[in-house]
Amino acid sequence: MDYHAINLSEKLSKFSERWSPKVIGEMNEYQFKLVKILGDFVWHSHKETDEVFIVLDGEMVIAFRDGEVRLSKGEMYVIPKGVEHKPYAKKECHIMLVEPKGLVNTGETTSELTAENNVWI
Amino acid sequence: MDYHAINLSEKLSKFSERWSPKVIGEMNEYQFKLVKILGDFVWHSHKETDEVFIVLDGEMVIAFRDGEVRLSKGEMYVIPKGVEHKPYAKKECHIMLVEPKGLVNTGETTSELTAENNVWI
Repeated sequence: MDYHAINLSEKLSKFSERWSPKVIGEMNEYQFKLVKILGDFVWHSHKETDEVFIVLDGEMVIAFRDGEVRLSKGEMYVIPKGVEHKPYAKKECHIMLVEPKGLVNTGETTSELTAENNVWI
Repeated sequence: MDYHAINLSEKLSKFSERWSPKVIGEMNEYQFKLVKILGDFVWHSHKETDEVFIVLDGEMVIAFRDGEVRLSKGEMYVIPKGVEHKPYAKKECHIMLVEPKGLVNTGETTSELTAENNVWI
């Protein structure tokens, strides 16, 4: 049988939209999504789940109501469920998210940045 | 409040044992684990869950009973639950696993390579 690796760079080369998560893999009820980000996202939280950010290229910041964490290439962070956060990046940054299938990117916040869900590349 | 990124290189520098997963983060009931591998692991499967391999440095192969997949730095693979597999690497390779907390590295196979679980670094 043929088995094919999921190549992150190759997948990243397939899209240019920002703040628009693309699914590249599924593990049980979780998904791995690539996102290109630039500028400010909206404040939001996911009351039902933790969420993992892994920076593949560039730098980003995740703001919390009482602080922030800076993430560079090769760094990750687990946002605890229910915690309000706002990601932003001064220059385009490429990240991988790990989160439950069906999770809305803007959580409990309605926004023009709310993206279509379950888009595979 | 102080928030700290999880730096994968820094975490990798903290251990040298092979085939001995170290937990670096937890998302709901799942864990992110770093592993250094060299040579052959044992054939095994995890009948209750999928398992994700992400290669951080080097190259590895995951053998299946009817084929194999080669993974290089920046590539990942999702092993479906119940599928027998045997990871191996000709040169030391550094990987990140994503899998349910408590998952035994050798699955249903008892081996001298069976590692202690839930070891954080």
